[in-house]
Amino acid sequence: MSTAPRVVILGGGFAGLYAARSLRNAPVSLTLVDRKNHHVFQPMLYQVATAALNPADIAAPIRSILSSQKNCKVLLAEARRVDLAASVVETDGAPIPFDYLIVGTGASHSYFGHDDWAASAPGLKTIEDALEIRRRVFVAYECAERETDPEKRRAFMTFVVIGAGPTGVEMAGALAEISRRTLARDFRTIDPKSARIILVEGVDRVLPPFPSDLSAAARAQLERLGVEVWTGTRVTGIDEGGVTLGADRVGTRTVIWAAGVQGSSLAASLGVKLDRAGRVPVNPDLSVPGAPHVFVAGDLASVQQDGAQVPGVCPAAMQAGRHAARNVAALIERRTTTPFRYVDKGTFAVIGRGAAVGDLFGWKMSGRLAWLAWLGIHIAFLIGFRNRIIVLIGWAYSYITHRRGARLITGD
Amino acid sequence: MSTAPRVVILGGGFAGLYAARSLRNAPVSLTLVDRKNHHVFQPMLYQVATAALNPADIAAPIRSILSSQKNCKVLLAEARRVDLAASVVETDGAPIPFDYLIVGTGASHSYFGHDDWAASAPGLKTIEDALEIRRRVFVAYECAERETDPEKRRAFMTFVVIGAGPTGVEMAGALAEISRRTLARDFRTIDPKSARIILVEGVDRVLPPFPSDLSAAARAQLERLGVEVWTGTRVTGIDEGGVTLGADRVGTRTVIWAAGVQGSSLAASLGVKLDRAGRVPVNPDLSVPGAPHVFVAGDLASVQQDGAQVPGVCPAAMQAGRHAARNVAALIERRTTTPFRYVDKGTFAVIGRGAAVGDLFGWKMSGRLAWLAWLGIHIAFLIGFRNRIIVLIGWAYSYITHRRGARLITGD
Repeated sequence: MSTAPRVVILGGGFAGLYAARSLRNAPVSLTLVDRKNHHVFQPMLYQVATAALNPADIAAPIRSILSSQKNCKVLLAEARRVDLAASVVETDGAPIPFDYLIVGTGASHSYFGHDDWAASAPGLKTIEDALEIRRRVFVAYECAERETDPEKRRAFMTFVVIGAGPTGVEMAGALAEISRRTLARDFRTIDPKSARIILVEGVDRVLPPFPSDLSAAARAQLERLGVEVWTGTRVTGIDEGGVTLGADRVGTRTVIWAAGVQGSSLAASLGVKLDRAGRVPVNPDLSVPGAPHVFVAGDLASVQQDGAQVPGVCPAAMQAGRHAARNVAALIERRTTTPFRYVDKGTFAVIGRGAAVGDLFGWKMSGRLAWLAWLGIHIAFLIGFRNRIIVLIGWAYSYITHRRGARLITGD
Repeated sequence: MSTAPRVVILGGGFAGLYAARSLRNAPVSLTLVDRKNHHVFQPMLYQVATAALNPADIAAPIRSILSSQKNCKVLLAEARRVDLAASVVETDGAPIPFDYLIVGTGASHSYFGHDDWAASAPGLKTIEDALEIRRRVFVAYECAERETDPEKRRAFMTFVVIGAGPTGVEMAGALAEISRRTLARDFRTIDPKSARIILVEGVDRVLPPFPSDLSAAARAQLERLGVEVWTGTRVTGIDEGGVTLGADRVGTRTVIWAAGVQGSSLAASLGVKLDRAGRVPVNPDLSVPGAPHVFVAGDLASVQQDGAQVPGVCPAAMQAGRHAARNVAALIERRTTTPFRYVDKGTFAVIGRGAAVGDLFGWKMSGRLAWLAWLGIHIAFLIGFRNRIIVLIGWAYSYITHRRGARLITGD
């Protein structure tokens, strides 16, 4: 149809979506490919896992986000391999030829070589993951209510979260609130308030990427909520009946994995040596060494800046997606590309109702103020009018009543 | 613990829930058993299937609905068989002894002996069914966008609904709105507006239980939305590639089953000869012939009144659940039971935005007025504060923007 350069974007996460939007006025023929039909607002996925929000509150169809962008076609397909020699992306359907490629297929959790743990300890990356974790958590209470053996009942009422990064901290805090508040009065045999929530971390403090005083504040807030924080503890075994932590054994039926990073398998076809986490070490302009027309943005890229790794957080993915798109535009206009520079505006982690820690432009805060700042920033970022309003109401409702409106167990 | 009579209720649908609530002040030890943790507001399930609403908007945890009712315990378990001789319900866990039993396990669709059609033509009874149908509908458009063979593309863009009772009519109308409005501008290759929606009914008019002038009005409104209405048409075959309707063959990849009634399999253990649809022909007081302490309420009961069958609709299930509970209370107080009488306050079927037909206390209406009446009645009935508000906002949003906020494809 047109002779416009074909730009293909793999992945509809923050990197891919921001790349597509940045090219909305560019004279290109754009195709965004994702194996899901929806973009997920990842920072709030744990709210779906803990039944505070519905899937649709934090996710939106990619097709509808981009429906007004006439130069962009959205394709539901699974990208399997990039054929750099032929300039084609191989998918589960027809191959997709490209002149320029932006890869934003992200990363998932790493089980550090113990992939057999995945069945007993699901991670939290997709809406399906969140619904599966939600199902396990609420089914555990139901099973405890039915169970007559005290030891087995104890295992059903023990929840272990592995990894105390932001996701792990948020999950542990939300699990504590479920046991202490949401379910407090709903059972007749068990007392949900007696549930144990254990947060396990290999290094010596929670939230390792945060300044150490914020780590200490987060730990204090977690413990106030009733979470047992086990730092300096390594997992050596996970099975259906429990978790082995060095010399200790904790009987539990619900383990949530929130540790490690593993780049998407697509990276293997990009012709460069990947880093230990399977990420692509890109050039300063985010292009792939040896393939100047191919860029990697978001969690799949390994970018060094000032001697440190740019973190795998949403703002970094948005900025990198936008930058990769600008460099594609530069190449099309025969200008030179520019190096990417991540601007860290701040990071937050939420512990519970009115409890959070954060760092905004270097201003450290904790407690209610941090929580309000987090709330404002995240709602502002949520894509789509409906979501913002409904998320606010959902939260207001949870906040006032301590209930969790979305507490449905679905699936098998 | 107590010597209060043990009343067991099977099923947390409208019959079971209303039975439980009616006994809230009775001196009984109540156990409500359901294999799901949530009650579903069935009349709006098609709204979840067509992505206008979230699962949590029309469902609520049974445990939380009944949390303030201190004499009632809720158990997540699958009832498998009633042992009348031993007065025990056998489940997938421990058996549950009872002094009085109210069975409200409902009915599902009947494939008229063709159970092999179920895989290609799912019915709509649970939240999981609704999400599966939603997934199929939206995936069909995605596949059509990818498909290059015009005949195959046509099949992806053809949707067949079998059965023109209220659920079938509502599904067909909503599918037409999805194609004509929701998706109208989201694709680049296909034109969603060209999708075919076919509604198939064996008898000679849609909404057979309604007065014939309302059937005619409903048909006209469906056709105005672009639905092809095939009355007097019997299905003789369904497979992955299409539907055989007598001499006709329609290529389609999406078939939705909304016909027939099949009582829950639990009925077989109640020691009476079931009717052709597998329902229990109960005594006038809703008790099971030969078992005066066992009652059946809701869709599983076959109740004759004035020479006709009491319909399997929500208001009938609510009334019967309440009545069965009253009769249990009567037996406990050594009074005589009273016969059940269904009071028909009206019925509605919705065709689309501002399009419906209804009969309220004998007052027949159609079009926008019927739709507004339906909306008001159904929101008033929705259980739980959060749901009412959020459902209203969800609808207002859909109404204003023609979008469907919950348009996520999840699952495999």
